[in-house]
Amino acid sequence: MSAATEATVTNDPAGPRAVVLLSGGLDSATVLAMARAAGRRCHALSVDYGQRHRCELEAAARIAVRLGACEHRVITLDYGQLGGSALTDPAIAVPDTPGTGIPVTYVPARNTVMLALALGYAEVVDAAEIHIGVNAVDYSGYPDCRPEFVAAFERLAALATRAGVEGHPLHVVAPLIDLSKAEIIRRGSALGVDYAATVSCYAPDDAARACGVCDACRLRRDGFAAAGLADPTTYRARD
Amino acid sequence: MSAATEATVTNDPAGPRAVVLLSGGLDSATVLAMARAAGRRCHALSVDYGQRHRCELEAAARIAVRLGACEHRVITLDYGQLGGSALTDPAIAVPDTPGTGIPVTYVPARNTVMLALALGYAEVVDAAEIHIGVNAVDYSGYPDCRPEFVAAFERLAALATRAGVEGHPLHVVAPLIDLSKAEIIRRGSALGVDYAATVSCYAPDDAARACGVCDACRLRRDGFAAAGLADPTTYRARD
Repeated sequence: MSAATEATVTNDPAGPRAVVLLSGGLDSATVLAMARAAGRRCHALSVDYGQRHRCELEAAARIAVRLGACEHRVITLDYGQLGGSALTDPAIAVPDTPGTGIPVTYVPARNTVMLALALGYAEVVDAAEIHIGVNAVDYSGYPDCRPEFVAAFERLAALATRAGVEGHPLHVVAPLIDLSKAEIIRRGSALGVDYAATVSCYAPDDAARACGVCDACRLRRDGFAAAGLADPTTYRARD
Repeated sequence: MSAATEATVTNDPAGPRAVVLLSGGLDSATVLAMARAAGRRCHALSVDYGQRHRCELEAAARIAVRLGACEHRVITLDYGQLGGSALTDPAIAVPDTPGTGIPVTYVPARNTVMLALALGYAEVVDAAEIHIGVNAVDYSGYPDCRPEFVAAFERLAALATRAGVEGHPLHVVAPLIDLSKAEIIRRGSALGVDYAATVSCYAPDDAARACGVCDACRLRRDGFAAAGLADPTTYRARD
């Protein structure tokens, strides 16, 4: 089966069920396309956790439909009040130059929370898999993007749920974990992902135009360049 | 130091910081009292996840103040829309007779979600411990109340956070895990917990009066009887 054919797989009501964490960004859109191509019946889950870049959630809704998720749910989590991240706390500025170590855009325990919510959703819809777009290459400063974190969550899930207790442990699928941004973009493009519909920028404007200078924009732009593909992102003019 | 003296320990600004998950029920109130008696500076965390028994949250606020938490935060999580539990889904009745296996009052992945949120809070306030009132004796039907689940979460936390990466793994303290309800009540009473302020019932009325017949009420009533202590719970009249 060619990659292009894979992208046209339709929803199989009898296919294995998977919960796919969908942020509206480039990575999670690619994960959804890969899960659909692998014949999964995909229950897309987005979390409205007070992120500044709320147009991501609108992007997630569009992507879920275009890529054939069987449903898309948004859980609202009033997480911003904990503070501690430039992505939820207006008092912390999004940096426009790269830093070292763990970036201020790190959201405390975000992937642990996302996977926990996905685990609850998986229990309700009886899914045996959670698919998540974590990536250890670009986000080496984030502890919860590493393979050992994903493996530890899978061990936790086996002990945490009805299914696990009954001998059907849940699998956490992280297909992007060791791919470069260019490789991710190539895979998604081959599967027909329209990256113009995705939002990566940490500080987009009201029209969802990207700033072009934050870490996420830089990674994305460099990724398209390295993949040898045209960057479909709409960038806004800078002062 | 006697137990009665321990209960009067005041907040030490320099004491070790702990996040204490506080539902407003009997168990978590006891956990907070134990953590305070052990000299912890307690950051109480409640989660408004759409539970039917919302007067629990009001109880949590009162208990946090009375037992000397240094702060109390409530995170709102729109979790009920996932469905799947009698505690959040109005379409599922709370049973008034005991069942077998995992009860319908089980909330999907609840303790995984609670611990994940507590982990985020612990990162923000730089706490090295999360205290949680899970109990494997009374809640043997809940997979996420077992010691192996708690241990797995601790392993996950060591990999998930800045502190873990920097060599300061977080500890999950579950002091009630192998205690009977009577033992929990005896410990809390010795520490001065006013159980009249706590709400255990799965289906209290608007005045926070307990039904007296759900699993939670039955466990609580039997616990006071077995402890040889007066039950301060206000029960409503039954038809």
